[in-house]
This record gives sequence, C-alpha cells and structure tokens, in this order.
Amino acid sequence: MAVTDTVTGLEVHDVRFPTSEQLDGSDAMNPDPDYSAAYLVLHTSGGPRGYGSCFTIGRGNDVMAAAIRSLAPYVVGRPVPATAGRLAALHRELTQDSQLRWLGPEKGVMHMAAGAVVNAAWDLAARRAGRPVWEFLAALTPEELVALVDFRYLSDALTPDEALAVLRAAEPGRAERAGRLKARGYPAYTTSPGWLGYDDGKLVRLAKEAVADGFGQIKLKVGADLDDDKRRLRLARDAVGPGVRIAVDANQRWDVAEAVRWMTALAPYTPYWIEEPTSPDDVLGHAAVRSGQPVKVATGEHVANRVVFKQLLQAGAVDFVQIDAARVSGVNENLAILLLAAKYGVPVCPHAGGVGLCELVQHLAMFDYVAVSGSWDDRVIEYVDHLHDHFTDPAVVENGRYRAPTAPGFSARMRPASVAAYRFPDGPVWRARSQQREQEVSA
Amino acid sequence: MAVTDTVTGLEVHDVRFPTSEQLDGSDAMNPDPDYSAAYLVLHTSGGPRGYGSCFTIGRGNDVMAAAIRSLAPYVVGRPVPATAGRLAALHRELTQDSQLRWLGPEKGVMHMAAGAVVNAAWDLAARRAGRPVWEFLAALTPEELVALVDFRYLSDALTPDEALAVLRAAEPGRAERAGRLKARGYPAYTTSPGWLGYDDGKLVRLAKEAVADGFGQIKLKVGADLDDDKRRLRLARDAVGPGVRIAVDANQRWDVAEAVRWMTALAPYTPYWIEEPTSPDDVLGHAAVRSGQPVKVATGEHVANRVVFKQLLQAGAVDFVQIDAARVSGVNENLAILLLAAKYGVPVCPHAGGVGLCELVQHLAMFDYVAVSGSWDDRVIEYVDHLHDHFTDPAVVENGRYRAPTAPGFSARMRPASVAAYRFPDGPVWRARSQQREQEVSA
Repeated sequence: MAVTDTVTGLEVHDVRFPTSEQLDGSDAMNPDPDYSAAYLVLHTSGGPRGYGSCFTIGRGNDVMAAAIRSLAPYVVGRPVPATAGRLAALHRELTQDSQLRWLGPEKGVMHMAAGAVVNAAWDLAARRAGRPVWEFLAALTPEELVALVDFRYLSDALTPDEALAVLRAAEPGRAERAGRLKARGYPAYTTSPGWLGYDDGKLVRLAKEAVADGFGQIKLKVGADLDDDKRRLRLARDAVGPGVRIAVDANQRWDVAEAVRWMTALAPYTPYWIEEPTSPDDVLGHAAVRSGQPVKVATGEHVANRVVFKQLLQAGAVDFVQIDAARVSGVNENLAILLLAAKYGVPVCPHAGGVGLCELVQHLAMFDYVAVSGSWDDRVIEYVDHLHDHFTDPAVVENGRYRAPTAPGFSARMRPASVAAYRFPDGPVWRARSQQREQEVSA
Repeated sequence: MAVTDTVTGLEVHDVRFPTSEQLDGSDAMNPDPDYSAAYLVLHTSGGPRGYGSCFTIGRGNDVMAAAIRSLAPYVVGRPVPATAGRLAALHRELTQDSQLRWLGPEKGVMHMAAGAVVNAAWDLAARRAGRPVWEFLAALTPEELVALVDFRYLSDALTPDEALAVLRAAEPGRAERAGRLKARGYPAYTTSPGWLGYDDGKLVRLAKEAVADGFGQIKLKVGADLDDDKRRLRLARDAVGPGVRIAVDANQRWDVAEAVRWMTALAPYTPYWIEEPTSPDDVLGHAAVRSGQPVKVATGEHVANRVVFKQLLQAGAVDFVQIDAARVSGVNENLAILLLAAKYGVPVCPHAGGVGLCELVQHLAMFDYVAVSGSWDDRVIEYVDHLHDHFTDPAVVENGRYRAPTAPGFSARMRPASVAAYRFPDGPVWRARSQQREQEVSA
C-alpha cells in the first residue's frame, strides 16, 4: 500500500444477464431488458484492485465497454488515486478533456464511461483506506468535499460558498447519524412487485410479501394501459393496506398533456409519486406536469448531468430527486447533485435495481444522510431483489431498510465466476443460448 | 436500381486530420482539436452506395466508430431504404430500440451514431433518386414530411397538425424559391478569421479577405480573456467596416452571470450574436443570458435533441437556432427542429465547419428555405474554408453564398484516398507522426 503504487491495467468485460426471459425489469418503455453491466477492474502494482461498472439493459453494452476501454490512458501507468485531491483531479481530467467532451458534452455513453472509471477509482481509494465509500466520504472535511465538485454551470444555483455552508451545517451531527445508520439501516422501497410484465396474481403476491418484509413503500410500473393501471393500483392497495405508500413509474412514456390526463385519472388511487412522467430532458415539461395534476413528481435516473438537475430544481419541477450512481460522472457529480438538492430542500430518493445500482447508490444516500442533508425523512432508496448474488459484497435489505455496508470499497466487485459465466457473447450462458437458437433455425 | 436491392455491408473508418498543428478550430473550450470523422459506407447489392459521417474533434472518434458499427444489424441484410416511408421506419428503429435507448436516451454517442446511419441512408436514397438531398426532401408532400418526424415529447409545442399547417403554408412558393436558390445560392458567413489561436495580424488579414470574398458576416471566438476579446472585436470592426455583421462565439465557456457580465462589456463593440454563452443543456440559463444583456443569443451545435430545442423555443431563450447535421439523429430529427423553429418564428442558422458539416447541413438549410420556413431573411449557414477537398462533392461558397448542390446525395462522400491517408492510427499521415514521436523520445 505504498504511496507509489500505480494503476497497471484497466480490464473491461461486457456482462449480460438474460433477464428478458422472465420479464424482470419490464416497463412501459423497456419491454424486454437484458440487465447488463460494462464492468471494469483497475489493476494495481500492489494492494487492492478497484472495481466499477455501468448499468445498461443489453444491446449497446459493447459500446459502453469500448468507451470505458478508451479511457485507459487517464488511469493506467499513473499513481493510484488514493486521496480526495487525486480523485478530484481524475474526475476533472475525464470530464473536461476537450476532445472527449465533444462526444457529449457531459452526457450519454462517454459521460457514463467516465463515471464508471471515476467510481472504480473511489472503490479503489476506499478499499485502500479500509472503509466503505459512504464512510470514506463522510470522513472528509467540508472543504475537501467542496473541492471534489465541478461547479461549472452551477453558480447561478449553487456557489462553492453555499455548498460549504450546507456541509458545515451538517457537520456537528455526523457521528450521531453515522451511529444511527449503523444501528438501524437506511429506509428502502421495493419495485419487485410492480414490473409491467407480471400478471395480477404475481403482483398481489409480491406486494403482500413486500409488506411482510417490512417495506413501507412499493412501486408499480404504469403507462401502457390506463384501465390496467387502475386495476393494478386497486389490487396493490388492497394487498398492502392503507398505510403503505404506492409510487408509480411511467418510464418516460408520456407527452406532457398525456401525463397530466393520465395522472389526474390515477390520482383517486392515491399514488405517492409519479416517476419519469415524460422525457428526462424536459425540465419545463416536468414543471408543467407537477403543476397540472395533484401527484408528486420524481425523476432523475436518466437525467444526464448536474446542469439538468440544477434546472429541475430551479424550475420547481420535482418533489424528489432520483440520483443514479452510474448515469452521471460518478461520485463527484453525484456530490454536486446532493448539494443542489440539499440547498433547494428537495429529498433525494435514489434510483436502483439494475446490475450493481443498489450496491453503489446506497453509499451515496447514506453519505447524504450523515454529511449533506442530514435527514432521512421522506427519503428511500429503491430496492429490487435480483442479481445481488453476483456481487461479493451484495446490498442487504432487512425489515425494509438497507444495512450500512461495512466492507471496504463501493460494494462494486462482481464475483469472478459470474463475470466468466455471463460474459457476452462468449460466456457459457450466452454460448448455450446461441447454440440453441442455431439448432432451432436448422430444425 | 431494382426495388429488391439490399444493403450488404456497413463499413466504418476512424478518420482524423491533425488540425491541432495549425490551431485551426481553436476556441475557448477546444484549444487543440484534431478534426475527425467517424465515416461510414453502406454497401449495396446494386446501384449507388450511401455515405455518412459523424464529426468529432479527435480522441473518442474510435468510440463513435464502434457505436456506428454496432448499428449494422439495423441496416445490413435489409432492403435499401429508398423511400420516405422506409427512411421514417429506419429512424424510428434506431432511436426507439428500447435497449439502445438506455444509453442516452436520445443523446451522446449512441444518438449521434444513429444520426450518422440515418444520414447515410438519406444519402443513399437521394443518390438512387438522382437528386441532391435538399431537392429530394423538397419533393416530398407535407404529409410525407410529417410522417418522417417522431413527435414524441413535442406535442406541448408542436402537433402533427401544426407541422402540417407550416408545411402547407410554404407549399405554393416551393418552385419559385427553388429556382431562386439555384440562381443565387444561400447566404453564408465565415468563421475562418476568428479562431482563438490566430494572432492579430492573421485575424485582420482573414477578416479583410472575408469581406473581399463577399461575406456579409464573420464570427470571432471569444471567452478566454476579456481585454483580448475587446481588442480583437475592435480590430475586426476596423477591418470589415460598419456594414458587416460580427458574431461572437464563447463555446460554452461561461456560467450564467459571467456570460451576462462579459457580453455587457462587449456590447459596445456591437457583436451581432453571442453563440453558446453557457452549457448547451441550460435552457433556463440561456433564457437568463438573453434577458440579462443586449446581444442576441444563438445556440444549438451541441444541443442533444429535439426536446431541448423545444424548450429553448418555449422559454424564449434563443434568437437563432443553430442546427447541426450530425449531432442529433439525422435528417428526421433535424426536420422536427426546423418545424419547431418555423412555428416559433425563430430563424435557423446552421452550425458547420468541422469535417463534412458544411457539406451536409447546406442541404437542410436549403430545404428549410424551399419548403419549411420559406425564408432566408436573417438566415446564414456557417462556413469554414478547410478540409473540403477531402470530399468528392465539396460545398462551394462563392460571393458569400453556398451554391445549391446538384450532385445526387448528401454531399457526404469522402475521397477514398483521403480516408486511406488519414485513417487513425494506421494511415500513413498518422504512422509518420507516431514514428517521429518515437524518434524524438529515443533521441
């Protein structure tokens, strides 16, 4: 663990799970996702490695992997980025390289690839510090945290001084909240019952299980058929009783007026929030949806960067900010978004599910609780109960709460056996499917 | 040219020009671009091929090429998309594939790759019809044109009926305007004098040449140093005289308040517009800049998609819409943006320069003149006088106007010798540089 350790290699794998076969993850916009990860390993000259990934839903995961691979020159052959200062510098280099920036700027494949590398560097740094990322972050001073953030384009909404004030205000209670977090865990909600491809029986069964498992909130996918949505909401309400919140999620299915009409029709069924009513780029559209119908509005899993989050807050367009650990440029940009949300007083309820998203994002929500917003009121992390067994330090949810991770790092490491089995297209899981298809075609 | 011709292959090249060596293209955010193209060829079982490209500025061009390559299954082995109906279907498939959509949605590398393939399909279709793309488009009925557009997320600003009304209003004058366009060409402005890396002498010399060449507008890069900007604007004004417009371009350099301050200071030098004052994602920021200082606001070359253009128009954030031929998902999405701009009465002044951008975008501006806005008042296409000789049908600007292309297609074909010479990293131009660097290192 000498300071002179260097990053010696960046290894990338295209890992895909055939989830479309069970319609896990199905919604109004994504009928048949194969949950996937462009997964990377930072090799080092000594000490622990770093792990990271970007979540996709199948096709195009090879392009994500190529984008991550193209970033090797920014890390390989350089000192291990073990300090906050080096992590800040790495984030800036990856997101402000003038030539790469042209491919976004700060959005889409290239930005997500930068985020995957940044997150792997945080995993590496936290492993070397022997701490989980949430605790590693919560041990930094307000000044160190502010120095991690790229404030470009934010100053009309949040200046470094204002960010410092947010962090300083939360400083006194850090230790107490960390203790409470370790003792009680962080509130979660579950989307497992609500995938659009599930039949009514499965929905009811899983909704009841969710309540029995201690969840105070579940989520249903909506937006394909209004009558179906009404029936499913009624069935879910009957199953969970009046005390459990039922959020709904349209996954960007609607135009603005359609969102207003649809949610006005669903409002009598008391959904807790409507998530992604329309395009994630449509700040003004979200503001119109929020003011045009009575249900609270949530969005963020597809919001490209801090500049769009800034506007959602400026425009009063959202009641909940849903950060995603792997959509923006990693921990540093998510810190900017947490600070923006704290300044505007809007709760952060992270998006998760996917491959590794629960594992990653729990650290950010917990850090937010300990050192940024200082609150978990009205805050919940999404949880979906699948694919966790492919990780060496899987997220653990008990009694409707995420247990605070204790293992060093970002909980980002996949089991080598899973990577080998699900590698696309050459892992045995995919080779078997490809052979089967060939046999069907020739039969 | 049988109807049954199929697309037999998609060939992709990473082509880069070492423009950073002369600081051509240098600005406040892009100090040393190597102008590049991820270039593709659609091979067919008979008849002409189709050509397309995406412009980048160097690093990451390999990722763009990989993204384009990943789209082969959407075109290869399928019938040549020779009709408007097939071009509409292809655009929808490429941008609405639920798995690929996750990588944007509709932004960044994957979206630009879709645009490159869509544009190559338009090139192919127009070649088969024996017409330049602008004329091929202007021969479609309003109904056919509306059917090309994806109206998802637009209906709060533009419905299909409203689009139809725009196109029908322009229908009567189409032939007359096409005749005028062929006779006189389309107004251009030039950015050649204004790159930030050029010294004062070169700026003055090129500004005078621009006026002598018949341009009524030039553009200077600004945003690195206010005193430099004032001096350069004064020098340029002295060189061109009072009758020539001088636009300025900050290439996203500023935060909102900084943009307002800087442009208030430059306003006495009467710049015609300020281009990209801040982040292209910042709709509310552009609106604040427009209302906070007296200079007109232009943006668009980095605007990710029609949803963001919609909001720029809804918010009254721009005086000029700057479409880019290769940033969004090709002809179809640019048609949506032209229709939005026409409805809101905002002139479209396309971004060009780059590699092949002048060649492509001239067709869209000319089509807009003939069949959409029906006007070229206050409209100009950017022109930069470099790299055109690498194309088989280069854009031609005479007396400050783009000559209307007459060759079939989208003017998108690069000379095979140029592709071979500038292929990265294995073409002779780059091999020579790499050998030179190795010698310098070992010397």
